[in-house]
Amino acid sequence: MKLAIIGATGMAGTALYKESVSRGHDVTAIVRNKERADSLLGSDAKVINKDVFELTKSDLAGFDVIVNAFATAPDQAYLHLDLAAKLIALFRETESPRLFFILGAASLLDSEGNLFLDTLKNVPDAASWISIPIEAYKTLNFLRSVENVNWVGVSPSAEFVPGEAVVPILGKDDLLTSATGESIVTSGTMAVAILNEIEAPQFIRTRFTVCNQ
Amino acid sequence: MKLAIIGATGMAGTALYKESVSRGHDVTAIVRNKERADSLLGSDAKVINKDVFELTKSDLAGFDVIVNAFATAPDQAYLHLDLAAKLIALFRETESPRLFFILGAASLLDSEGNLFLDTLKNVPDAASWISIPIEAYKTLNFLRSVENVNWVGVSPSAEFVPGEAVVPILGKDDLLTSATGESIVTSGTMAVAILNEIEAPQFIRTRFTVCNQ
Repeated sequence: MKLAIIGATGMAGTALYKESVSRGHDVTAIVRNKERADSLLGSDAKVINKDVFELTKSDLAGFDVIVNAFATAPDQAYLHLDLAAKLIALFRETESPRLFFILGAASLLDSEGNLFLDTLKNVPDAASWISIPIEAYKTLNFLRSVENVNWVGVSPSAEFVPGEAVVPILGKDDLLTSATGESIVTSGTMAVAILNEIEAPQFIRTRFTVCNQ
Repeated sequence: MKLAIIGATGMAGTALYKESVSRGHDVTAIVRNKERADSLLGSDAKVINKDVFELTKSDLAGFDVIVNAFATAPDQAYLHLDLAAKLIALFRETESPRLFFILGAASLLDSEGNLFLDTLKNVPDAASWISIPIEAYKTLNFLRSVENVNWVGVSPSAEFVPGEAVVPILGKDDLLTSATGESIVTSGTMAVAILNEIEAPQFIRTRFTVCNQ
């Protein structure tokens, strides 16, 4: 399939790029920093080197799936919501491309049915990064209101860290934990789960979540 | 003040344009149809003749207030939300321009505390137009999540009809009714209320509503 990855030089994006290539897909990395892309993805990687807010519909024409692995600093976390709204607006009343959003874990419910965001807000240093889960939560709420675009969202587990793939466990709206009680997903596992979902869609206009087994 | 009106040839926009001119403001009409603008607003009207989704930040630079009186057909009602998201994205982390959104009445609460949208959904021919109040409600919910843009929303009363101005009654989130029990606002009254709010802001990053006295 013809895939585009926005933010392909980030933790999630890099793993996703590699998994896509290894499965034989035709992948384009959409990045702001071409040198970083060359260094992380190899100089033969297909790259669109452009600020995401400058992307046009024709830049994105012909892709089967666009995965949004965009990341920002906490002081510009609102760009997550703005980028989602931009991508949705570009592809209203279409079924292709499918838009795949990597969201945070904050919108998941914990074992007591509480929004994980509320737990995160009480973490001692939350003030320095809480804008990111807040805006990711807003982004999911925005997406949930969209009925005429082929979108899907994926949330990691409580911890989202670099690492090799293991077998992914999937869920819907509940924060998952492994057999050993850890709520953690590695970038490799996330990439496997995303590629599985791209190749055999199960979640249409909804959000799912992934945990390391 | 330097004002821009998106959708200045619609019912709300035309009344607003005239009220703005009569109060001596420097007004620009942003319209898709120049001939219609010439005919409704006069050929000496300042006009930006452009599709709203093509507007750039530089097109909108220098305005103190941009009033969004954009209207669509029901089958493209989602454009309300997309346009709001676009305007918000253009002016993140700014206090000027102030963005003034004309929203529907559906997001107001009736005298029993029920969302007026739920009542509207049960109107016999609702299927043919309900997308518009639904998307306006989504737009308000989107705006309520925005903390770093100087926005304000205004909802009409249950009926929003062409007509001269009378004294406006203002409220917050409840559907208003006049002394005679009618929930109705004319385009003239709406224009007066909007210009009053532009000249002396009372509602910051919130929504208010207007009814004919």
